[in-house]
Amino acid sequence: MDFTAFRKYAHELVDWMADYLESPESRRVVPEAKPGEIRAQLPTSPPEQAEAFADIIQDFTSLIVPGMTHWNHPGWFAYFPANHSPPSILAEMLMSTIGAQCMSWQTSPAATELEQVVMDWLGQMYQLPEGFTGTIQDTASTSTLVALLSARERATQHAFGQQGASAPNADKMRVYISTQTHASADKAAKLAGLGLQNVRKVPVDDNYAMSPKALTDMIEEDLAQGYLPTCVMATVGTTSSSAIDPLEPIGKICKKYNIWLHVDGAYAGTAAILPEKRYILDGIEYADSLVINPHKWMFTNFDCSAYYVKDVDLLLRTFKTNPEYLKTTYDPQVVNFRDWGIPLGRRFRALKLWFVIRTYGVEGLQERLRHHIDMAQTFSQWVQEAPDFELLAPTPFGLVCFRYLPEGVAEEQLNTINERLLAKVNQNGQVHLTHTKLNGQYTIRMCIGQLYTELEHVKGAWELFQTHKNESH
Amino acid sequence: MDFTAFRKYAHELVDWMADYLESPESRRVVPEAKPGEIRAQLPTSPPEQAEAFADIIQDFTSLIVPGMTHWNHPGWFAYFPANHSPPSILAEMLMSTIGAQCMSWQTSPAATELEQVVMDWLGQMYQLPEGFTGTIQDTASTSTLVALLSARERATQHAFGQQGASAPNADKMRVYISTQTHASADKAAKLAGLGLQNVRKVPVDDNYAMSPKALTDMIEEDLAQGYLPTCVMATVGTTSSSAIDPLEPIGKICKKYNIWLHVDGAYAGTAAILPEKRYILDGIEYADSLVINPHKWMFTNFDCSAYYVKDVDLLLRTFKTNPEYLKTTYDPQVVNFRDWGIPLGRRFRALKLWFVIRTYGVEGLQERLRHHIDMAQTFSQWVQEAPDFELLAPTPFGLVCFRYLPEGVAEEQLNTINERLLAKVNQNGQVHLTHTKLNGQYTIRMCIGQLYTELEHVKGAWELFQTHKNESH
Repeated sequence: MDFTAFRKYAHELVDWMADYLESPESRRVVPEAKPGEIRAQLPTSPPEQAEAFADIIQDFTSLIVPGMTHWNHPGWFAYFPANHSPPSILAEMLMSTIGAQCMSWQTSPAATELEQVVMDWLGQMYQLPEGFTGTIQDTASTSTLVALLSARERATQHAFGQQGASAPNADKMRVYISTQTHASADKAAKLAGLGLQNVRKVPVDDNYAMSPKALTDMIEEDLAQGYLPTCVMATVGTTSSSAIDPLEPIGKICKKYNIWLHVDGAYAGTAAILPEKRYILDGIEYADSLVINPHKWMFTNFDCSAYYVKDVDLLLRTFKTNPEYLKTTYDPQVVNFRDWGIPLGRRFRALKLWFVIRTYGVEGLQERLRHHIDMAQTFSQWVQEAPDFELLAPTPFGLVCFRYLPEGVAEEQLNTINERLLAKVNQNGQVHLTHTKLNGQYTIRMCIGQLYTELEHVKGAWELFQTHKNESH
Repeated sequence: MDFTAFRKYAHELVDWMADYLESPESRRVVPEAKPGEIRAQLPTSPPEQAEAFADIIQDFTSLIVPGMTHWNHPGWFAYFPANHSPPSILAEMLMSTIGAQCMSWQTSPAATELEQVVMDWLGQMYQLPEGFTGTIQDTASTSTLVALLSARERATQHAFGQQGASAPNADKMRVYISTQTHASADKAAKLAGLGLQNVRKVPVDDNYAMSPKALTDMIEEDLAQGYLPTCVMATVGTTSSSAIDPLEPIGKICKKYNIWLHVDGAYAGTAAILPEKRYILDGIEYADSLVINPHKWMFTNFDCSAYYVKDVDLLLRTFKTNPEYLKTTYDPQVVNFRDWGIPLGRRFRALKLWFVIRTYGVEGLQERLRHHIDMAQTFSQWVQEAPDFELLAPTPFGLVCFRYLPEGVAEEQLNTINERLLAKVNQNGQVHLTHTKLNGQYTIRMCIGQLYTELEHVKGAWELFQTHKNESH
């Protein structure tokens, strides 16, 4: 394909893209595809000869698009959002055109320096105290692993990385998370070689927030048994119910016992840009690392995970390699982000964040977040006022946790009824919600955070619950 | 930004993109930026109010682009390439517009099934034997870590992940790489908790390929001392000199001692799509895992790293999490790629690979690779024929390793002279080459693999060496 053809097809696809963005409601959020259906329509072998690009576009629109789940549909209430926005998409277009691989300063000077700038900007928006330095990772899961590996190395004075399991105390390390912490924390403990059985799950209070008292008890118990408390992972906005672990008391405990504090604000951390929500990061000065995902609630294409640390030297000592073939003359003077995480290669992710922050401005972003939180409050209100629905957790952000609670139905039937109700609501195709379990109770999660969601969509979802509730039992 | 504005700006940027692609030679490959220069031109704080998008574009073109290193310049001879191509860029545009987060089948049915299809296609193109199943990871570094974690879990029957350092044999594990293996192997051993000191560096032969005899000796030595040989990492196309570790004898050794064999074909593995180069993967049937990066030499935007394994169950047991909030009704019937690696979230990377393979066809890709290899042969010939240059390694692919060897200059001065010469050549701005050291000798790496590189660019580079050679000593 020459550049004349590229120009032609790019213009053609831009119109497709704009049409796609303008017409989300003409599509189901989740397709009706059955497993294997799409694959069965595709050739099992690669073409020997070049194919006409027009045919490829045709297959894309007729076979692929109808089989996609549309995360940016205004009826998206599932999981946490993975938002994009027009300026973010435009930035991705430019990033992919330049196609730089941003491992080192010299392989991408502007990308490296722009990453420093936007991470500083974000830090100011979150009102982080002095001393935090940021980089962009792909996901919060990876950031959590990076944090735990750093904690492991600090606790063993880098002996674990050098000697492996024979390092002093390598078999004594303990990690503390809550019963509500994201599964990536367990996974990180497993992958980092600390062992799943060394992950202790701290009980939570009635609001599903980690109990500092219970944390202290566990630490004391472990110390008495000769363990080495290594890392506490606190969450601001847990996945199941957006609970807020209290950073201030947890941070003081970490300080007292010299334990690494990692804060997972993947979803809700973004709310810290609102003065009225900044309290969620109170105590962040005690943290050693923090992750917040602009790709969740800041309208920036996945992947874009903002990771902050206090001790950059420790991060570098944990992740840096320095082979001859990567050395550049500028190394002593510059930041080489390749040494700040697991992968060597890196995309130019800073550009999309820069485009988004400038296009909306801090006030524009705040306005949108407030709108989402307001709509969640409204939905929460409807749930609380309905005689046959029940709110199952507080609603500090955009997530409403609830269930259908029809009169006269035994508790043991409620999980099945709610599972069935959710399936019926989702079947409609104009909304998508997911579930969790809180205290064993099947919980419907209505997460309002998609850029284009308006009250009519939220109302539409609520009406679907009203329409289908009687069919579910 | 509403969709009308998006459409307008997207068309405007498409013209910028096509212009950019059409005019690489109007730009230096590596900018003359000094550290901190770009950052100094950017505001230190985020804007409170929205900014006009036209201003953002203006800043992008005037501040960012001139500060970028252009990896897709035809004068790119540095590192290994990180190619893109018009169809790949078009796919990235569509991927970012849909903005799907492809963690589970249900969150992106078409993306999951297309990933299965293209990974099957690639497997056929590489002529992989039956039994390999593929997924797309971000980078080879990550793939190497995934492989080593899998090897660790297999060798300890999953006890390391469960118990950490106290697992039986956790402190006995040994990893074998060559002196030429990529630094990400050391990093993986460190991160996976096996310990840098348990990485043994197998000597290489005169062509920088791992010596099977020396590998056997090391394994026997370790066994005699009670160690548990866990993983061998063989490379097809090492970073410094594109050496080819012999997979067949290494594979037989791994089979005999029941050691995990990971094959790193990040750069050169792509050459296996050429019948005349397929021999490089002879013995691949012994491998447990394999990584080849289409983002290096298959004209597909970074990131796109093809990772194959034989034992999917083991991969899943190593990486799978199954929290309630991620469960979908289809889980028993489908592949959820979130469980095939470290991050939970995933971009829709299969689309660009599908676009690229179809646009060029297998033959089109082969033709381009052959062209690169031919040009490298030509350059290698020039080096060999020049009385004052020396070839430092074989040239099986697109990489030529050489140095300037002026008559009457002592060996101890050659490193400085070559470093100086390379700096002068790069200073010109129309080419970019990097270096390595082979046997302590400063080695200039001329890697020919950029999609738009033609013989005139290769000639231009050679002429620059001729022009500047006398100024370097």
